[in-house]
Amino acid sequence: MNDNHQPDHTHDHEHKHRKQIVNRLSRIEGHLRAVKEMTADGRDCAEVLLQIAAVRKALDNAAKLLLKDHLESCVINAGSGDDRTKILDDLNKALDHFIR
Amino acid sequence: MNDNHQPDHTHDHEHKHRKQIVNRLSRIEGHLRAVKEMTADGRDCAEVLLQIAAVRKALDNAAKLLLKDHLESCVINAGSGDDRTKILDDLNKALDHFIR
Repeated sequence: MNDNHQPDHTHDHEHKHRKQIVNRLSRIEGHLRAVKEMTADGRDCAEVLLQIAAVRKALDNAAKLLLKDHLESCVINAGSGDDRTKILDDLNKALDHFIR
Repeated sequence: MNDNHQPDHTHDHEHKHRKQIVNRLSRIEGHLRAVKEMTADGRDCAEVLLQIAAVRKALDNAAKLLLKDHLESCVINAGSGDDRTKILDDLNKALDHFIR
């Protein structure tokens, strides 16, 4: 992943659910850590697979919330012209990775 | 999730890729932590969505490796009768959650 924190990529507005999304991602991180420990402990594969599926579902829900926030605050207020085109292009690319 | 470590749920054999799977899950955990920080920092939504999709893909690949290990070592050596039926039932349930 790209880890460069570029200031021009930050938002100048606040998202309604940002804190909630960060909290969800924290919980998912904890869940994933538990799954890793289950695997290291040699727990049943089917059980581990179920938990990985649960982590994936939780991730999808966090992404859905983020997407709804994004639609409400960024896309609707995107103005027009090049800015709007870029925002929609970026969003479409991200969706292509999500919905396969 | 169920966090009870029940000794009767551990395996009595070693999986070929267990250590590799644990390492992958560790890396995914680190990736997810970075995505959480991106979100907290207010980074662009489309960028965060792309990274969440990358985490999901990495999780799917870890699950696939686990499943292959499971097929090689547990399912093939499952013996017969009730044990085999339970192992296949559990695996089918896990797959139902994965492939939707």
